[in-house]
Amino acid sequence: MAYDASNLPDVSGLTVGVVGGTGDQGRGLAYRFARAGHTVLIGSRAAERAARSAEEIAGLPGVAAGASVSGAGNDEVARRSDVVIIAVPWDGHAATVASLAEALAGKIVVDCVNPLGFDRQGPYALPVEEGSAVQQAAALLPDSRVCAAFNHVSAPLLADPEIDRIELDVLICTEDRELVDIVGALAARIPGMRGIYAGRLRNAHQVEALTANLIAINKRYKAHAGIRVTDL
Amino acid sequence: MAYDASNLPDVSGLTVGVVGGTGDQGRGLAYRFARAGHTVLIGSRAAERAARSAEEIAGLPGVAAGASVSGAGNDEVARRSDVVIIAVPWDGHAATVASLAEALAGKIVVDCVNPLGFDRQGPYALPVEEGSAVQQAAALLPDSRVCAAFNHVSAPLLADPEIDRIELDVLICTEDRELVDIVGALAARIPGMRGIYAGRLRNAHQVEALTANLIAINKRYKAHAGIRVTDL
Repeated sequence: MAYDASNLPDVSGLTVGVVGGTGDQGRGLAYRFARAGHTVLIGSRAAERAARSAEEIAGLPGVAAGASVSGAGNDEVARRSDVVIIAVPWDGHAATVASLAEALAGKIVVDCVNPLGFDRQGPYALPVEEGSAVQQAAALLPDSRVCAAFNHVSAPLLADPEIDRIELDVLICTEDRELVDIVGALAARIPGMRGIYAGRLRNAHQVEALTANLIAINKRYKAHAGIRVTDL
Repeated sequence: MAYDASNLPDVSGLTVGVVGGTGDQGRGLAYRFARAGHTVLIGSRAAERAARSAEEIAGLPGVAAGASVSGAGNDEVARRSDVVIIAVPWDGHAATVASLAEALAGKIVVDCVNPLGFDRQGPYALPVEEGSAVQQAAALLPDSRVCAAFNHVSAPLLADPEIDRIELDVLICTEDRELVDIVGALAARIPGMRGIYAGRLRNAHQVEALTANLIAINKRYKAHAGIRVTDL
């Protein structure tokens, strides 16, 4: 069927946790979900740092006065959230995800990590033994519901309080078709975004790696590029 | 600098050849460049087949009565064209490109081939020893100017005479920055399209592979999906 935002489930009651929520991407997504009215939990290895980050986000324009944004250690965040976004640096991805396997059992896990290397010529895709970051997460989290999403969302756009709409599509890769609706509905909580099913996990590598191309585009055109899928 | 179509060079006088011009993608691109008023040469291993295909294209709606669309063997097409689009099946890519190395010396070569496999679960990206189809072409064509482009353009949209505009961006990967303007200008000859620099050849794999995701999107949403880069 065609993409139809009016068919999406109501996800407004879901608690969104962000593991690695003090990094640029994690903070930006946490801010947007706080703006959308979700209960948001910022996770970090250091609970105090997460708490400070949560306090900052709660004070940003567009976040309601009584909004529930708090910080905690990654493990606690994983346990207390319905949906957990993994937004850690690729370096620590496997170790962090593995350490949270028990806390993430039964949870929806959204991996937005892009395995990229950087040298003088700019960014490039790193090979991943499991195929992609999200496949690595899926292998380490057999009891979670795992997808890739939010890989291409520009952190500076997310963080800019003056930007109300972020016009792009969130490509969702997963084996779990029902997840597409839930994560697609979450994406649609950020004005301008659509969540689009973009294939199975085995086709997630190129979605993650495409971030290197978006960085090249940003450099060339002085932009914060994203992807919109046409004809949908 | 920002993307600016008004800065593009005039490429209207370039002869466009299509190696593998009797396949769906090649035919579709040939049709669009013929509609745009280019001299178009359809290449095939069998010159008669190419000639038949050229005759058909010349008769399609939107192609001017006196348009120059003709067919020939791949080698002759390569020699007589300014810009040569490689649109052969991945299976025959290396052999075909290698056989044309001399004919393509000094030419602009645009590779739009996507190395994909298909099984019961649909399409998936094939590993390529050189990294990507276009890197394979670049390795085989040391005397040509090589880029990847037009990887994501839907053949059914290209072929549909009732469609005037095809709203999508053509991602151009190359080491040759000047090529971006020329191939970008060619893309812009097809109404609705922009040609966007999307990184070096080493980042072409994921652009080619993303076609597997677009096929998944097409299946799920009954669409002919393409990519538009946002914030440009």
